[in-house]
Amino acid sequence: MKKINFCDLAKYDQQEVVLEGFVERVRDLQYVQFLILKDRTGKIQVTLEKDGSLKELNEIVSKINADSTVKVTGTLLKNEKVKMGGMEVIPTEIEVTSNSLEELPLNYRDLNSANLDTRMDYKFLDLRNEKNILMFQIQSTFVEGMREFLYRQNFTEIHTPKLIGAASESGSEVFEVKYFDTKAYLAQSPQFYKQMAMAAGFERIFEVAPAFRAENSNTNRHTTEFTSFDLEFSYIDSYEEVMDLEEDLLIAGLTKVKEKYGDKIKEQFGKEVIVPTKPFPRIKLQDLYHELNQRYHYEIPTEDIGDMNQEAEKLTSRYAMDEFGHEFIFVTDYSAKKRAFYHMRKEGIPQGYDLIWRGCEITTGAQREHRYEILCEQAKEKGLGDDVKFYLEFFRYGCPPHGGFALGVDRLTMLLLGTTTLKETMFLFRGPNRLNP
Amino acid sequence: MKKINFCDLAKYDQQEVVLEGFVERVRDLQYVQFLILKDRTGKIQVTLEKDGSLKELNEIVSKINADSTVKVTGTLLKNEKVKMGGMEVIPTEIEVTSNSLEELPLNYRDLNSANLDTRMDYKFLDLRNEKNILMFQIQSTFVEGMREFLYRQNFTEIHTPKLIGAASESGSEVFEVKYFDTKAYLAQSPQFYKQMAMAAGFERIFEVAPAFRAENSNTNRHTTEFTSFDLEFSYIDSYEEVMDLEEDLLIAGLTKVKEKYGDKIKEQFGKEVIVPTKPFPRIKLQDLYHELNQRYHYEIPTEDIGDMNQEAEKLTSRYAMDEFGHEFIFVTDYSAKKRAFYHMRKEGIPQGYDLIWRGCEITTGAQREHRYEILCEQAKEKGLGDDVKFYLEFFRYGCPPHGGFALGVDRLTMLLLGTTTLKETMFLFRGPNRLNP
Repeated sequence: MKKINFCDLAKYDQQEVVLEGFVERVRDLQYVQFLILKDRTGKIQVTLEKDGSLKELNEIVSKINADSTVKVTGTLLKNEKVKMGGMEVIPTEIEVTSNSLEELPLNYRDLNSANLDTRMDYKFLDLRNEKNILMFQIQSTFVEGMREFLYRQNFTEIHTPKLIGAASESGSEVFEVKYFDTKAYLAQSPQFYKQMAMAAGFERIFEVAPAFRAENSNTNRHTTEFTSFDLEFSYIDSYEEVMDLEEDLLIAGLTKVKEKYGDKIKEQFGKEVIVPTKPFPRIKLQDLYHELNQRYHYEIPTEDIGDMNQEAEKLTSRYAMDEFGHEFIFVTDYSAKKRAFYHMRKEGIPQGYDLIWRGCEITTGAQREHRYEILCEQAKEKGLGDDVKFYLEFFRYGCPPHGGFALGVDRLTMLLLGTTTLKETMFLFRGPNRLNP
Repeated sequence: MKKINFCDLAKYDQQEVVLEGFVERVRDLQYVQFLILKDRTGKIQVTLEKDGSLKELNEIVSKINADSTVKVTGTLLKNEKVKMGGMEVIPTEIEVTSNSLEELPLNYRDLNSANLDTRMDYKFLDLRNEKNILMFQIQSTFVEGMREFLYRQNFTEIHTPKLIGAASESGSEVFEVKYFDTKAYLAQSPQFYKQMAMAAGFERIFEVAPAFRAENSNTNRHTTEFTSFDLEFSYIDSYEEVMDLEEDLLIAGLTKVKEKYGDKIKEQFGKEVIVPTKPFPRIKLQDLYHELNQRYHYEIPTEDIGDMNQEAEKLTSRYAMDEFGHEFIFVTDYSAKKRAFYHMRKEGIPQGYDLIWRGCEITTGAQREHRYEILCEQAKEKGLGDDVKFYLEFFRYGCPPHGGFALGVDRLTMLLLGTTTLKETMFLFRGPNRLNP
């Protein structure tokens, strides 16, 4: 763990340093050679005169391809003439630790030079673009900030199984696994098991884990595997408390991101990180329909009544901004027909919400129905039978009132940074036609 | 988030409180009723005189089954006569928020009252045992401590796909998934993708995620799905640095656990949490064989030469304790035949190790081979072909020297608490005959 980060090199003026990194560029001129090195944190120039004093090193440098990795020992000197950080390293040793081929199949330095499919084929090169490396550091920090908040609130992180015995919530869109002499399925969400933890008295839990959807659709915001940030907590009186918690959670995550990467996000992605104020605006679906119609002449299509669609989500964000100057807005009072059977209902109205951010739905949350008889009734009404039987059992022996929600980590990152597709935003995207690398 | 934790109730003397929790026990006597409530943090007695002043509440209490959940409003009074914490609550309101059936199919209060299979069938009840709830809080804290350490060291948390296009490292023991018109497989480990992140210049990454093994074996320490804590980092000179990092990581995790739960672990599990000192003992496999033979007359069976087995692991811990007074010991210099092709070798010797704790292997770690030609050679030698082709590509365009390791979170928890099987230690165990609930 001794590696010096290039961003810290200014501290080492006149000292011997060991540099380890990728070769960004080699310039081999008549009287001098420049080796530009980079790591995650910055770049540094290594300068070699060709006056005969460094003959062996000159020879090594003349053969190095960009994208190879090297270990350079030398003296760091401040030099105002060097544009790159006003310093350079005069080497005494150069070791090539790995060789790159001369021609890369992808010019990752210019992401517009290749189409998205090629970029995904060579994702291991595509990710070398500094914007992409930064993207994952930001994502990690976002999740870190949210986790820290939950730890402070005494949430327990659990790990629920992804291999499940029944086809789960919906029955459709679930992947089937050959499981010895029988079949298993891949969990579409940890929903049932989060609630099992509530029935077991865990009170407050969260999980960050993959979720799987066998959707044969190719959109910018769908994928067959994504990282789901799920939580559930007990002893609530209403889904308002779930929304309250989600506000605090997102504020914690965004605050951390803004502190650490706000400037870089602006510089590299041209996006402002806005830490939202509390409370986020909240509106009932019917009132929202009315507003969208009045303001933007938008009429929800018949098949989507009681629900939203992508266009409505976009306009909803516009409305939130126009009316409240806010990037987030909770939409409540969806139709029971359009919501999962496990959402609690009051007078027929699901006690849940969607949260919209920057034109896109990022969460469905709700107070859950925890009373066995009513839950059975609601499952039956949706035509669910044997597949949910094991789940209904969780509620027969007492279960506290509870609620929760899920956030898609990849989608959050996409919206935060203003990238246009999950194919770009994910470490490795998975879709119906994409399983490699 | 307003719920009062029962462990904090002493602060509320003479005040009105709202209690939410499970009913632990009801005692309905001639002149008085006692309702014992519990939450994650403690227990509290609710006392109701039967003098006519609380008639409606008396009626509610007379019908409550244990394991139902309630919300009780009342006044907290210190009362030295009450054995349970020296206080009680005199209620003004009682709301039953969920009902339990009178007879539970599992007596979770006495874990010895049922066999393990029944306990797993009713895991949602089994987990209500306070020891079990505690187990997951401890596990969460262990992982939290390790994460915090890595964040401080500027590690990035990534999320690699579990759906993969090729059958991965070994070819055998991998689950097959029906993936639209083709097949996918479930990742046995994120190994290849951790290394892809190194080739992409991520430098330091970790991941906590499920890993899948289609092993048709029924032992106490194997499962078809487990939570793997994986990390990988670049710019190392030797696998010694990987061991150094693992020491620091485990010390960080165990320190956090000891601070927060050391006393409770002693009380509930009878185990001492020992924060290990650095460096952990390190021994070459051949020297270890010699020691085990000299000290304990143990001879490694012919088929295991160059490797370990369960009995040898047990004795190795005994040796570490006898010789060094240490719970941990690194074993190095395994045979190349017994190690993965991606371990770097020096003079034929794999540059990696196993770490043994409390009689059980908990990690395989190594410096990886990052040089394309040598890696191809080693893959070929192990008979690996098309399945690893996509992986070998990662190394053609430069890749820094790197290493890493993986820890099984469930196994760590088992060893920490001295439980005897993963079936007990996991939130929901998965084995060849176990997919439910």
